Amino acid sequence: MTTAPPADLRDLIGSCQSGFALPRPFYTRPDIYEHDIAAYWNHSWIWVGHVCQIPEPGDYFLFDYAQESLIITRNRAGDVCAYLNICRHRGSRVCTEAHGNTRLFVCPYHAWSYDLNGQLRGGREMGPDFDPSQYGLFKAHLRVFEGMIFVCPAEVAPEIDTGLERLRPLAAPFGLDNLRIAHSASYPVPANWKLAVENYMECYHCAPSHKDYSRSHSLKDPASMTPDLLDPMRDKGRAAGLPDQVVSLPNTGDHGMNFYYRRYPLYPGYQTGSQTGTPLAPLLGTLTGYDGGTTDLQIGILNNFLIYSDHVVGYRFVPRALQQTDIQIVWYVRGDAQEGRDYDRAALTWLWHVTSLDDERIIRINQEGVNAHRFVPGPLSQMEWGVQAFYDHYLTGIGHR
Amino acid sequence: MTTAPPADLRDLIGSCQSGFALPRPFYTRPDIYEHDIAAYWNHSWIWVGHVCQIPEPGDYFLFDYAQESLIITRNRAGDVCAYLNICRHRGSRVCTEAHGNTRLFVCPYHAWSYDLNGQLRGGREMGPDFDPSQYGLFKAHLRVFEGMIFVCPAEVAPEIDTGLERLRPLAAPFGLDNLRIAHSASYPVPANWKLAVENYMECYHCAPSHKDYSRSHSLKDPASMTPDLLDPMRDKGRAAGLPDQVVSLPNTGDHGMNFYYRRYPLYPGYQTGSQTGTPLAPLLGTLTGYDGGTTDLQIGILNNFLIYSDHVVGYRFVPRALQQTDIQIVWYVRGDAQEGRDYDRAALTWLWHVTSLDDERIIRINQEGVNAHRFVPGPLSQMEWGVQAFYDHYLTGIGHR
Amino acid sequence: MTTAPPADLRDLIGSCQSGFALPRPFYTRPDIYEHDIAAYWNHSWIWVGHVCQIPEPGDYFLFDYAQESLIITRNRAGDVCAYLNICRHRGSRVCTEAHGNTRLFVCPYHAWSYDLNGQLRGGREMGPDFDPSQYGLFKAHLRVFEGMIFVCPAEVAPEIDTGLERLRPLAAPFGLDNLRIAHSASYPVPANWKLAVENYMECYHCAPSHKDYSRSHSLKDPASMTPDLLDPMRDKGRAAGLPDQVVSLPNTGDHGMNFYYRRYPLYPGYQTGSQTGTPLAPLLGTLTGYDGGTTDLQIGILNNFLIYSDHVVGYRFVPRALQQTDIQIVWYVRGDAQEGRDYDRAALTWLWHVTSLDDERIIRINQEGVNAHRFVPGPLSQMEWGVQAFYDHYLTGIGHR
Repeated sequence: MTTAPPADLRDLIGSCQSGFALPRPFYTRPDIYEHDIAAYWNHSWIWVGHVCQIPEPGDYFLFDYAQESLIITRNRAGDVCAYLNICRHRGSRVCTEAHGNTRLFVCPYHAWSYDLNGQLRGGREMGPDFDPSQYGLFKAHLRVFEGMIFVCPAEVAPEIDTGLERLRPLAAPFGLDNLRIAHSASYPVPANWKLAVENYMECYHCAPSHKDYSRSHSLKDPASMTPDLLDPMRDKGRAAGLPDQVVSLPNTGDHGMNFYYRRYPLYPGYQTGSQTGTPLAPLLGTLTGYDGGTTDLQIGILNNFLIYSDHVVGYRFVPRALQQTDIQIVWYVRGDAQEGRDYDRAALTWLWHVTSLDDERIIRINQEGVNAHRFVPGPLSQMEWGVQAFYDHYLTGIGHR
Repeated sequence: MTTAPPADLRDLIGSCQSGFALPRPFYTRPDIYEHDIAAYWNHSWIWVGHVCQIPEPGDYFLFDYAQESLIITRNRAGDVCAYLNICRHRGSRVCTEAHGNTRLFVCPYHAWSYDLNGQLRGGREMGPDFDPSQYGLFKAHLRVFEGMIFVCPAEVAPEIDTGLERLRPLAAPFGLDNLRIAHSASYPVPANWKLAVENYMECYHCAPSHKDYSRSHSLKDPASMTPDLLDPMRDKGRAAGLPDQVVSLPNTGDHGMNFYYRRYPLYPGYQTGSQTGTPLAPLLGTLTGYDGGTTDLQIGILNNFLIYSDHVVGYRFVPRALQQTDIQIVWYVRGDAQEGRDYDRAALTWLWHVTSLDDERIIRINQEGVNAHRFVPGPLSQMEWGVQAFYDHYLTGIGHR
Repeated sequence: MTTAPPADLRDLIGSCQSGFALPRPFYTRPDIYEHDIAAYWNHSWIWVGHVCQIPEPGDYFLFDYAQESLIITRNRAGDVCAYLNICRHRGSRVCTEAHGNTRLFVCPYHAWSYDLNGQLRGGREMGPDFDPSQYGLFKAHLRVFEGMIFVCPAEVAPEIDTGLERLRPLAAPFGLDNLRIAHSASYPVPANWKLAVENYMECYHCAPSHKDYSRSHSLKDPASMTPDLLDPMRDKGRAAGLPDQVVSLPNTGDHGMNFYYRRYPLYPGYQTGSQTGTPLAPLLGTLTGYDGGTTDLQIGILNNFLIYSDHVVGYRFVPRALQQTDIQIVWYVRGDAQEGRDYDRAALTWLWHVTSLDDERIIRINQEGVNAHRFVPGPLSQMEWGVQAFYDHYLTGIGHR
C-alpha cells in the first residue's frame, strides 16, 4: 500500500497556467509535499556526491533528503553502489554514521547484516523457510558521470544515458573526475523546495538581489552578451581547449531528464568567479588558460553545476519539510590542489556564500507572501523561461504517478 | 483555485447547539483553522492601528495575522490606504520592514515597484503585451473611525458605515482621533484564537480569575450595578459631556458587523482603571471631569476598546497558528500627553497587564481541556451571552463561504 | 460529534500481513495517530500509578497522555476514583497541579467546583433550570490490583476482572500493595508510540542492543533456558514461596485484555537485575529468599512490570504526538525500605536506565527508517511473537470503532 496522491491532484494541475507562477497549494499543502517526495523526488536522478569521497572498497557515505536516506558505497570489485538505508526486517535505518568504512552494514536494532553488495547475510531466528536472498537492501539506480555520482531510488529510473553521452565531450576538458572537495556548506531556508529551485532557475532576480554576482556575470543581463563580450571568450576558449556548443535537451516525454550546457562570458577583468577577477585555484583538467567564461551545467532539473576555469560549484536544494529546505553547496578544485598552497578557502567560497545569503532571504519572503490566502500567481518575465521549464517537468512528474 | 472549505463543514456547524460551547473540532482541526482565516478573518473588518502611526505621506506600517500581511500607508494626497503585502509577480512580500517611510514599495526579489497608490511602475523584461495597470497591489477596504484604522482584505467587505455613524456621536467626546500610543504589548497564548475571543466576550470569569479587575469594575457582577452605582455615574457623565446611551447592534444578516457601546460604573473610589483609583493621564477629548465609569466599545467582534476618562486600551486577538494566538494590547493617551510629565507608563499599563497574564493562563488550560477527545461542550451561563453572540457571528461567517 | 475514523481505515487494516511489520502509514499519518488515541488508548486499561501516591482522602495526582488528562484521587470514603480532567462547562482543565491534596476541584476559569466524588457543587449564574447533577466530572473506570492503579476512560471498559483474578495468586507473594516509589524517570523518544511498544514486546533485539541486560537475563536467548538453568530457579522459587506457573491469556474477543505472567531465570551468579548480581533492596512481600529469576507481568498490552525478588520496575509508553513518545519507568521497593539504609538509588536504577538509553536510540532510528516512502514491512522472527500479539490487539481495537 503506497501513499495515495491527493484526491484533487488533477484539478490542481489543471489550475496551473503556462507562463504564470504556480498556485498557493503547491507550496502550502502537506499532502502535496508528501506527493512531491514520493512521485517526483523518488523518481528523479539526484546528485549525491563525488567518487573522491569513497576511494576505497568499503568506504561509504549517506545522502538524506526529506524522510529518505541512501547509502552510497564502493564494493570489493571497486564499483560504486547505492542502497536504500532501510532494514528489510522492521525498517530501522541500517547505517547511522554520515560516512565511514565497513565490511558489513549491521542494523543496530536486530543485527541483520548486509554485505557491500546489499545481500543479507543469514537472519537470526527466522525459521527454516526464510530465504535471505529475498531480503537484500533495496538498490538505487546509479550513474557516475565524470566522477559525479547520480542516484535514482525508483524501481524504474528515467532514461539518462543519452543525455550524459551528449554532455560527456563538453565536460571532458574540465576533468571533473579529478576533483577534490574544498568546502561544503548548507543554507537552511524556511521555504518549500520548489521556491528554492525556482530561484536558481532564473537570473531575473540577479540584478536587484545579487550585487556581487552581477558585477562579474553577464547572465544577469542577457542584452549585455554582445559579440564584443562573446567573441573573445570563444576565441580564448578554443585556444584553451574548450568546445564551443550550447546543449539544451528539454523534457524527453514522460518525466524525462533535462540537460543543459552553456558557457557564457564574465565581464572584462574577471577570469573566474572571484571578488577581484583574479584566479582562485589551478586550472581544471586539460585547460591551458582562462577564457573569461563560466559554464552552466544542469543534469536533471535538480542538479546544477557552475564550472569556472579553476573550480566547480555544485548546487542542490534538499527538501526537509513542507516549508524547510537546505541549499547545499559543494566547492571543488583540482584533485591535486592543496589548501593554503594552491587556493584560499575564504576567497574560493566568497561569491556563492554571499549570493546564497541573499537567496536565503528572498526565498524566505517569497514563501511568506505565497502563504497568504489572497496570493494569485503572476506572469513570468522573459528571463524566467527556466522556471517554466521546471514547472513543466514537475507537473508532468507528479501527474504521472 | 481557492482553498476548499472542509468537506464536513455543514455537519460541523449543525453539531453546534445554541447556549452551549462549540465542539472540539473547531479548536483542533487544521483545515478548520485554514477556513477560519480564509472565510472569517479575511472577510472581517480588523482594527490594525491608529492614524498617529503614519502622520506623513509615505509613512507606513505592516499588520500581520495568520499567514497574511497588510501594508497600511498614507499616500501623497494624505489618504490612508491599505494593500495586501503580496507581489503580483511571484508572490514575495513586497515590504519587509515593520514600519518606515518610502516613496515606492520595491519588491526585494525582482524589483517590481509599486507607488503609494499601489500602482505597478513598469515591469522589467515583461514583453510588449504586459499591462502594468493589471498588476497593482491588491487593495484592502479601509475606514478611519475617529483616528482608529479598520481594514478588510476581502474583495467585498461587510457593511460597516451605518454602525460607525451610529457610534460616532457617542465616541466624539473622547477625542479618539487625537491620541498617542503610550505602550504596546503582545501576550502569546498556546490556544486557538476563538478561545481568546471567547475569553474577552464574557465577564463570568472575572470574579474568580481577575482579582485586581474585580476590585474596581462592576461588570464582574451585573447584580452590583444598582441605581446607587449607576445614577452618580450618569450625573457626572452628563456634566463631563458624555451622552447617556447604550448601543447594541447585533448581526445584520449575512455575516454583518456587531457594534456595541456601553458606559458602566467603576466601584466607588475609582476614577479610572488604576491600582489606587486615582487618575492616570490627562482627561481625553472634551471631557471636563471623571464620571467614575468606563466604556466597552466593540466595532465588529474582533475589535475591542476600553475607554476610561483618561486613557484607551485597545484589544485584539491575532491568530498565528491553529493553537497559537497573540493577545495584542495598545494603551493610548491624549495626543499631547508626555511620558514622565503627564503619565507613568508602569502605572498606566498595570491593570490590563496583570489581567492579561491571568488570561494567558486560563485560555491555555481551556485549550488543553478542549483538546481531550472526551470533551463535551457544556452550557453557557447567563453572563456569557457575548460568547453566544460571537458563536452566531462566527458560524454564520464560516458557513457563508 | 466525535472524531471520524480515517476514511481508508478498512483498506489500511487489510493491507497488514500477519507475521510482518505494520505498513508505513500507521507510523506517519496524523489522522491514524488521532484514531489511535480515540479508539485504542481511550478504550484501553492504562496503568497510571500506585496507591502509595495517594494515601489520604483528598490526595490526588494527574496522569496525562496524548491530549488527555486524568485526575486520580481518594475520596472521603477512602475509595480511589478517577475523573477526566475536563470542566463540564467550557472544557478547561479543572486541575493543573501534578499532585496535591484538596477538598474540592475548583476550575480555574469560572470556578465551577467538583467534590471528591466528581459531583458539581452549584453553578453560578446558570439560571433556574440548571441541574448540577447532570454536570459532574466524567468518571473513568478504575481497578486497583495489588496496589497498582489501572484506569480506562471509555464509557464501556473492556473486561479485566477475570484476568486479574487469575493473576492475583501469582502476584500475591510479591506484596505489590506494599511498595514505595524509589525513582521515576521519563525517556522521550522521537517515534510513534507503537514502535516503543513493539520494542518492549520482543527480546530479539536484546543480544545485539542490550549488552548489560544480556549478561544476566536468559530471555535474550530462549535456547539458553535449559533445565540446568530452569530447575534450580523453580526449586528455589518454591522454597521462597513462589507458585510455578505460566499464564498467557490472549485476546479475549473484542479488543479484550492480554494478560501474561512468567518467571524466567537470570544467569548463574545473578540474584536480581543488578550490575554485579548481588541484591539491591529488601526482599519483597512474603519471599524468603532469592530464586535467581525475574517475572514478566503484563496486564493489558500497554502495561508491563518486571518483578525481581527485591524490586519492581514498571514500564509504560506514553504517546505525546504522532512521532513523540515518553518511555516512563517507575522503580518500586518494599514499602518500608529506606534509601541509603536499604537500597542505593543509582545501583537500583542502573540496569533499566542504561537499557532505556539503548532503546531510545534504536526506536528513534527505527522511526527514521519507517518514515522512508520505500519502506516495506519485513518478516518477524520467531522471537517476535509478542509483536504480532500487539499488532493483533491493536488492529482489532482500532477496527472496532
